[in-house]
Amino acid sequence: MKLLYHMPTKVIMGDGCVRSGAALLGGMGTRALIVTGARSARLCGALDDVAAALDSNGQAYAIFDRVMCNPTVACVYEGAAAAKRHGADFVVAIGGGSPMDAAKAVALLARQDIPGEALFSSPYSADVLPMAHVPTTAGTGAEVTPYAVLTNDALQTKKSISSPAFFPRYAFLDARYTKGLSRAITVNTAIDALTHAAEGMLTVHASAVTDVLAAESMRRISACFAALEEGALTDAQREQLLYGSMVAGIVIANTGTTMLHALGYPLTYFRDIDHGRANGLLMAAFFDFLNKHVPQRIGQILEIMGFSRVDQLRAVLDRLLGEKEPVGLEEAQKFTGIAAQSKNNASMIAPLRPEDMCCVYRRSFGL
Amino acid sequence: MKLLYHMPTKVIMGDGCVRSGAALLGGMGTRALIVTGARSARLCGALDDVAAALDSNGQAYAIFDRVMCNPTVACVYEGAAAAKRHGADFVVAIGGGSPMDAAKAVALLARQDIPGEALFSSPYSADVLPMAHVPTTAGTGAEVTPYAVLTNDALQTKKSISSPAFFPRYAFLDARYTKGLSRAITVNTAIDALTHAAEGMLTVHASAVTDVLAAESMRRISACFAALEEGALTDAQREQLLYGSMVAGIVIANTGTTMLHALGYPLTYFRDIDHGRANGLLMAAFFDFLNKHVPQRIGQILEIMGFSRVDQLRAVLDRLLGEKEPVGLEEAQKFTGIAAQSKNNASMIAPLRPEDMCCVYRRSFGL
Repeated sequence: MKLLYHMPTKVIMGDGCVRSGAALLGGMGTRALIVTGARSARLCGALDDVAAALDSNGQAYAIFDRVMCNPTVACVYEGAAAAKRHGADFVVAIGGGSPMDAAKAVALLARQDIPGEALFSSPYSADVLPMAHVPTTAGTGAEVTPYAVLTNDALQTKKSISSPAFFPRYAFLDARYTKGLSRAITVNTAIDALTHAAEGMLTVHASAVTDVLAAESMRRISACFAALEEGALTDAQREQLLYGSMVAGIVIANTGTTMLHALGYPLTYFRDIDHGRANGLLMAAFFDFLNKHVPQRIGQILEIMGFSRVDQLRAVLDRLLGEKEPVGLEEAQKFTGIAAQSKNNASMIAPLRPEDMCCVYRRSFGL
Repeated sequence: MKLLYHMPTKVIMGDGCVRSGAALLGGMGTRALIVTGARSARLCGALDDVAAALDSNGQAYAIFDRVMCNPTVACVYEGAAAAKRHGADFVVAIGGGSPMDAAKAVALLARQDIPGEALFSSPYSADVLPMAHVPTTAGTGAEVTPYAVLTNDALQTKKSISSPAFFPRYAFLDARYTKGLSRAITVNTAIDALTHAAEGMLTVHASAVTDVLAAESMRRISACFAALEEGALTDAQREQLLYGSMVAGIVIANTGTTMLHALGYPLTYFRDIDHGRANGLLMAAFFDFLNKHVPQRIGQILEIMGFSRVDQLRAVLDRLLGEKEPVGLEEAQKFTGIAAQSKNNASMIAPLRPEDMCCVYRRSFGL
């Protein structure tokens, strides 16, 4: 038995946990930079809670709310400049994957002068501002991972940077922040989390402990499939999804993701398809490929979700995702060329040849 | 859903992991104090592996090998003096629970001047020497917990001290070190780990994630019951036990233990009964009590171990532990008075009255 496990973030989950956990933030520093998007952190109440917690500690803060979906390199340098200007000694990230990922790069660049062309070349030194992450969607798991995914225009795709120093010190999970999310965002983020857990079982880094966490995550998320279809989640189901996405985050923190993520990134980069949706559009065809090479493992994953065949998963995903965006054969070939550069392939228990990757696109989009 | 989860130790498991992971030790400092017992670390090969790893890094080391079973306060001060004399800037612990627990107190006292009478009064500041732990038994889980259990002569029992700073930086798990253990030590430590996992499900700090880890641990350990009875474990079963004890350690790192541990400590303090054995002698009667108050939870725990009734667990424990030491009624009453001081009772999902505690002793020893 070989095993590597590391996830140092302290996770605090529960209604009102930001305000009741204010003392933890109080130990982080004297001046915070809050990294977030333009609107959702305000709308869901998370920004108010963080501000109140910082106020109660007598901590100063500035707000950098210019993180867009799929954050660019320019955005994180801008955030780092804001952190320096404000003299921030810690970072609080509020949002979905985009602000949480951007915050990690901001925390890095606030402390280290790394030119843009070197940003995607780790390792970095451990000198990074301490971070607390407050997810407002139930998908990315970034609150418990050492990854930040940024848009890489040189490679024309999304690419992750990674460092043990990117693990947030604290993750505050309050499912009430996810209550106002649209059906589409709720579905897309749930599928993102589901793919994290499933992909964690498909890499050579999977271990006994990540397997048991992946199963826990998939059981929780798949128990919400019917409610996700109806677009009518109870508060308890919202909690299950947020918990499931966090647990899936612990999984990928240790296993990494697979070619499913790498195949999805060009759909986001070139076609602006939401990240979780992109994974979901490709997931069944990706499983079809793996079912030929590692049928036992795919069978195990399907069984955890309550399925016995890939087609049953496909049917659920089709209902959740609705009509697919049309993608052409030339696009599929171009995306294949980009995805084939990903290092994710090397750690898969059954690597894909470029023709297999193209086949996943073709099956997914009926080409 | 409320949840608190924290376990920052990096776990590295696999045959030869100490030597292959030497680079991790290399980043810890320049001068190590190896904290261990008199013999077992030498016999099992762990000391050789640690020494080779440190040598390969050009790191100096001194060996403090005077940790006895159930380490005393005097012992950890002696270890701290050795650390200071040697100028140690990190600690490597090798052994079962006693050296691993003692090493945490040594790492604390090497950096902080705490008088003996204040040692059991946390919190401590976070200024503690960094530690790497190498378990040579599969029981304590101390390699992934923030606890150190020491003999407290003032209270006439064993008592744990705790600090987030006590989490080792690294835990190296090589099951080969456990191969030479006697049947008795193997059984006692396996029962210790089993009680950690089970007790983790019986405190108010249990959460969804600790429950799933507790179940994983109990499944792995209980799958070895037959082999433990026969005293004939395969290498793979040794690994399962070491993995199971580590996972149970993650559980109690977050939940703490219960009155079962507190009831067991006087058996160790006054009667020199091995810690895991003490827990095992009391476990079935402890479950009898809880079965009256939280039958669903006990049923869940029993089912994970493959049982439907407490008597089935009792039968297995009886076969594993053999003839019980005779304990008298007056002793039981004295032990009750000591155990009743434990703060563990307050966090149980069904607290025990002193008469319930005495009843556990009486049922366990046929009084």
